[in-house]
Amino acid sequence: MKHNFGAGPGILPQEVLKQAAAAVINFNGTGLSLLEISHRSAEFEAVLDEAVSLVKELFEVPSGYSVLFLQGGASTQFAMVPYNLLPEGGKAAYVESGVWANKALKEAKYFGTVDVVATSKESNFTYIPKDFEVPADAAYLHITSNNTIYGTQLQQFPSSPVPLVCDMSSDIFSRKVNVADFGLIYAGAQKNMGPAGVTLVIVKDDILGKVDRKIPAMFNYQTQIEGGSMYNTPPVFAIYVSMLTLNWLKAKGGVEAIEKDNLAKSKALYTEIDRNPLFKAVAVPEDRSHMNVCFVAENPEHEKPFLKLCDEKGIVGLKGHRSVGGFRASIYNALPITSVHVLIETMQEFAEKNK
Amino acid sequence: MKHNFGAGPGILPQEVLKQAAAAVINFNGTGLSLLEISHRSAEFEAVLDEAVSLVKELFEVPSGYSVLFLQGGASTQFAMVPYNLLPEGGKAAYVESGVWANKALKEAKYFGTVDVVATSKESNFTYIPKDFEVPADAAYLHITSNNTIYGTQLQQFPSSPVPLVCDMSSDIFSRKVNVADFGLIYAGAQKNMGPAGVTLVIVKDDILGKVDRKIPAMFNYQTQIEGGSMYNTPPVFAIYVSMLTLNWLKAKGGVEAIEKDNLAKSKALYTEIDRNPLFKAVAVPEDRSHMNVCFVAENPEHEKPFLKLCDEKGIVGLKGHRSVGGFRASIYNALPITSVHVLIETMQEFAEKNK
Repeated sequence: MKHNFGAGPGILPQEVLKQAAAAVINFNGTGLSLLEISHRSAEFEAVLDEAVSLVKELFEVPSGYSVLFLQGGASTQFAMVPYNLLPEGGKAAYVESGVWANKALKEAKYFGTVDVVATSKESNFTYIPKDFEVPADAAYLHITSNNTIYGTQLQQFPSSPVPLVCDMSSDIFSRKVNVADFGLIYAGAQKNMGPAGVTLVIVKDDILGKVDRKIPAMFNYQTQIEGGSMYNTPPVFAIYVSMLTLNWLKAKGGVEAIEKDNLAKSKALYTEIDRNPLFKAVAVPEDRSHMNVCFVAENPEHEKPFLKLCDEKGIVGLKGHRSVGGFRASIYNALPITSVHVLIETMQEFAEKNK
Repeated sequence: MKHNFGAGPGILPQEVLKQAAAAVINFNGTGLSLLEISHRSAEFEAVLDEAVSLVKELFEVPSGYSVLFLQGGASTQFAMVPYNLLPEGGKAAYVESGVWANKALKEAKYFGTVDVVATSKESNFTYIPKDFEVPADAAYLHITSNNTIYGTQLQQFPSSPVPLVCDMSSDIFSRKVNVADFGLIYAGAQKNMGPAGVTLVIVKDDILGKVDRKIPAMFNYQTQIEGGSMYNTPPVFAIYVSMLTLNWLKAKGGVEAIEKDNLAKSKALYTEIDRNPLFKAVAVPEDRSHMNVCFVAENPEHEKPFLKLCDEKGIVGLKGHRSVGGFRASIYNALPITSVHVLIETMQEFAEKNK
């Protein structure tokens, strides 16, 4: 039994993995593998429809929004967002809260002017920049809801005079969000929603069609909406596993229920970090992430022996990102609180040994 | 036992499916699912390295070429090719041999001038256009090696004074190809190489860097080469299954051996179509595809009852594309000749019943 604290591709529910493995052999009693059926078959169309319906239901997506399952990850969205939303000669506002936000704004520069309205770069992104003005003539405001590398998370979304575009790759479906506040939400699936290879996009239809440039079919949200995420062959398996994971979430009681579980997990872990004299948290308290708990050893020499002890306890994926060091406990939806307890006990055992 | 003649996502080897299902539960004894391990883990990096090596080995890729596993399907390549290769104000040559070739050239129009040097549109693409001149000032010549919908296939690649770009989605690894003759080869995996969700690109390094436009990172071959197909999180599962399928092909004796098998399958099937008075082939004899055998019933009223009989025999995926009608037997690498024999016997039984 492993305790998977990896930052992503991250842990998925055991029952989802069992269903996915079975479908690779024989999908829904068709006698064929899920990997070798047509994406235009009634069987797969039902999967895609169910995945879209579950997103709408679990996230309470209002009418006037389209739900898409695309390829290319959030990194492709970094370019697709300005391709579709930033007019020639126009301007877009970005909040720089980490490396991924920085990558997003760099892509936007290919399409127009970028106004970095706030940044926490000077502190190596240990907090979420909050006080900023959004120019009323910006095409949109781009934010990142959770920053995996630094363990920071937006606890309150900014109000914006222009459409709000949000990269939710690392905390989608982990907490309640009012979708109506957003123009566009995107998320690579591989943390809270499914395996690598599919990207969720929720877009307000009426923010589209306002740029003049010609957009290749695959990079055009309008084409993808008209094709119902099947303009071309979609990533069948990744969508299926996402559908299973969303169904698992629904059975758990939905987003509201998982949010409670996630808060309990992060509270337990931060309490131990704050209490344990050998460790300290990376992010400022008010911006601490409930998805990625980043912490370091007070004594850098403790880093290796602690990771070794974790390894002995079956704890995997705890090493921090190289730009921060230390440890990162990713406690995504599918991670049971029992794994958090094992980590806490290991921290306590380590502190006891190193008094 | 089903006989899967589906056009794609198509049949995969049974042993590949078994290995893939097992990896979804416990990957290489890690105690973790393949779906929940880091793409930066040594375990996955070994998978990607092996997949790249197998492509190079099986296709005898010369030095000076890069092998990439990307997302977005061939449809994304339709745009990426001109994005990277067609200079502002420049011209590209396209052979229009089917709907997919047409889609490819439409995307190129966003980036420059398109010169359709040959088309078989007037005959609904029942043959491969052959007599054409390629302008020496074209940035590249784009061709499609196999046209799934019409069952036509290039039996000889044209010689070209400019870099040859080829969509090999539906016949990659089905026959020997001299990679050195090409500037760029691309293929969605979901016919001969793996599941939907990953696209192979083999690109000659020195044809890149000749356009001035700025290209977003994800759409830039150079970024993808520098990132070793891991500029961002790759489609882990789809790459793994492709690696397994390439290993299966290697164990079968490689491309040369499978080409012999494929020729035996197509010869048996075309012989029956030509012999059986109830059916006739769609494509002209010299351009017949060894991957997709398209045929129609001489009497259109036979179509439904024949499909019904096929269904009773466990033959699936035989219905032709709506733009051609009739039947399409896709006989990709993983389809055993025994399945072709079952189809032939079913055609004979049907002819016997309908004398």
